[in-house]
Amino acid sequence: MAFSYTVTKTDPHCRARLGLLSTPHGTVETPVFMPVGTQATVKTMTPEEVREAGGRIVLSNTYHLYLRPGCELVRDAGGLHRFMHWDGPILTDSGGFQVFSLGPLRRVSEEGVTFRSHIDGSEHFFSPEKAMEAQMALGSDIAMAFDECAPYPCSREYAQEALSRTTRWAGRCLAAHRREDQAVFGIVQGGVYPDLRRASAAELVDFGFPGYAIGGLSVGEPKELMYEMLDHTVPLLPVDKPRYLMGVGSPDCLVEGVARGVDMFDCVLPTRIARNGTVLTRRGKLIVRNAEYARDFTPLDPECGCYTCRHYTRAYVRHLIKAGEVLGIRLTTIHNLHFVLSLMEEIRQAVREERMIDFARKFLHEYQKV
Amino acid sequence: MAFSYTVTKTDPHCRARLGLLSTPHGTVETPVFMPVGTQATVKTMTPEEVREAGGRIVLSNTYHLYLRPGCELVRDAGGLHRFMHWDGPILTDSGGFQVFSLGPLRRVSEEGVTFRSHIDGSEHFFSPEKAMEAQMALGSDIAMAFDECAPYPCSREYAQEALSRTTRWAGRCLAAHRREDQAVFGIVQGGVYPDLRRASAAELVDFGFPGYAIGGLSVGEPKELMYEMLDHTVPLLPVDKPRYLMGVGSPDCLVEGVARGVDMFDCVLPTRIARNGTVLTRRGKLIVRNAEYARDFTPLDPECGCYTCRHYTRAYVRHLIKAGEVLGIRLTTIHNLHFVLSLMEEIRQAVREERMIDFARKFLHEYQKV
Repeated sequence: MAFSYTVTKTDPHCRARLGLLSTPHGTVETPVFMPVGTQATVKTMTPEEVREAGGRIVLSNTYHLYLRPGCELVRDAGGLHRFMHWDGPILTDSGGFQVFSLGPLRRVSEEGVTFRSHIDGSEHFFSPEKAMEAQMALGSDIAMAFDECAPYPCSREYAQEALSRTTRWAGRCLAAHRREDQAVFGIVQGGVYPDLRRASAAELVDFGFPGYAIGGLSVGEPKELMYEMLDHTVPLLPVDKPRYLMGVGSPDCLVEGVARGVDMFDCVLPTRIARNGTVLTRRGKLIVRNAEYARDFTPLDPECGCYTCRHYTRAYVRHLIKAGEVLGIRLTTIHNLHFVLSLMEEIRQAVREERMIDFARKFLHEYQKV
Repeated sequence: MAFSYTVTKTDPHCRARLGLLSTPHGTVETPVFMPVGTQATVKTMTPEEVREAGGRIVLSNTYHLYLRPGCELVRDAGGLHRFMHWDGPILTDSGGFQVFSLGPLRRVSEEGVTFRSHIDGSEHFFSPEKAMEAQMALGSDIAMAFDECAPYPCSREYAQEALSRTTRWAGRCLAAHRREDQAVFGIVQGGVYPDLRRASAAELVDFGFPGYAIGGLSVGEPKELMYEMLDHTVPLLPVDKPRYLMGVGSPDCLVEGVARGVDMFDCVLPTRIARNGTVLTRRGKLIVRNAEYARDFTPLDPECGCYTCRHYTRAYVRHLIKAGEVLGIRLTTIHNLHFVLSLMEEIRQAVREERMIDFARKFLHEYQKV
């Protein structure tokens, strides 16, 4: 089997664990954060820079690649790995989250979703079968089932309907999937309703997916509610399969998520805020665009060993960003990705040493005090 | 003396020569092309990438740095080298070309130029003394005298006046300059009038500058006229001093310029057209944005060994540029800079082997046939 997951260690004081996720493009240690390469590139970075920052598996977006440059083109280029020059594992989302986010630009039926391109307004149709076909063409290591992600807030009835459809679509995804070198993960839905989460998890686990995502969180609900849903949902998932919390990547949520048993994360946050001139430090966010850093000749984060912090000052990075220079957002992106990926390494070390709870308490205290 | 220039070889069949330009930040071989880092960064690139592409000396713009972030700030950061993390030689222009390009936003007097910032409209005054002060604060290895660059076309009277003022200002620059670790180059003006070029060169050579720029060319005149002016001007300059043709960097002009005795060049062209999706090849320009390359899975230039051409296809680069991804313009910039800097290496090899004329003929035939 080209894909496998092995839990190698569990922290006895919480749900945190270590694991090895094996894919046709290599094995990665979990818990892992996946940098997002929406359009077949982690914004502003080369693959070598992603790896240097600590990236071992990246996420790419089927919706975006389907519209541009087209999944068949990527297939003809030799697949997504070769197209984007990334030889490590790739996870692709199904496009479900994006098409449901289009709001008035989409119509949902049992068969699938009709939507208009955000690029040129052209009409398209996505279904479980089309989402599988697209991801098979891309050739990612992990494909995601096509799901319906309910918004927050949303009624119990809507959440119920979305999760039932997600289950039916999960079956259609598995029926349509035909690549042995690609794993398909199911996605648990159910909004913020514990009994619906329970129903969704039970139905999906029946399919025997090689991995499970927890979807429909980090969509606007308070963080405490997200943590509560994790506490409900994680125990319903098989202990020997990876658990992936979709769209989550702020430092505090990574720490809280791992402590609750999550193995995989992805989020645009570290790279997106970098492009707005905000950088992550152990003492919280620092808005390096601000005038107070104009003459600050210290690194973005004096405790950081990334390329940016080794060679450049806040004053220089601020100058570049104010002047609209690309190098500015490259430097902040390198730093933020390095920050999050180093944090994951520290988290894994803490789990290895059975002190995740202690690590979480200390980290959250320091991170949130500013 | 911290600065010196030595001619190490002259091609007996034309005016091309090899030399070694020694500065406080290292020695570079000439003929040399200087990548432009207008705002203390070669657009989109790290200093390591500039060096990897073959860059050994970069140019930065006093006008831009004076306005943002301010030359005193750069001085307080430890100088421009440290600020931008470039430890090789830096040449700064004087700001003259930029303020004279501002058109209605500037007023010229014998004392200097009053101008309005293109950023915020604030009023500023630049003079030979201010230009020297600014460049001393930046701490470049080579500072340029503050000159008046006449436009093309321009009357003989205007060109005469501009060159006379340039001479007087050159004297004031030398009187105001006080850094032993910084060389000041004079700039020959005179428009497209051979006798004015002769007068300008004679007056400037009297000052005994350690290097001479040929200014006021590549400002809109036909290339043939530029070559003619080089043929007139180069023989008027001391054989043992470097000759710098300002603002010139298209591949054909580099070849023609070296054959006419030019040692140094700078130009935004390779990096600017890269950001528009145009790349340089031995067979001329290739507009990789164009639809015809959408499914072209070959490198930008099959004969090129740069990072971009080793790892990426035209289809991928086109996808990135169409999608507005920063990596796209990074990859085209790396390629174009590598192209120009490799061409300079080939040119130096041709001069070393006394076959510059032959090299130029072959290169120009191939480059211009498309």
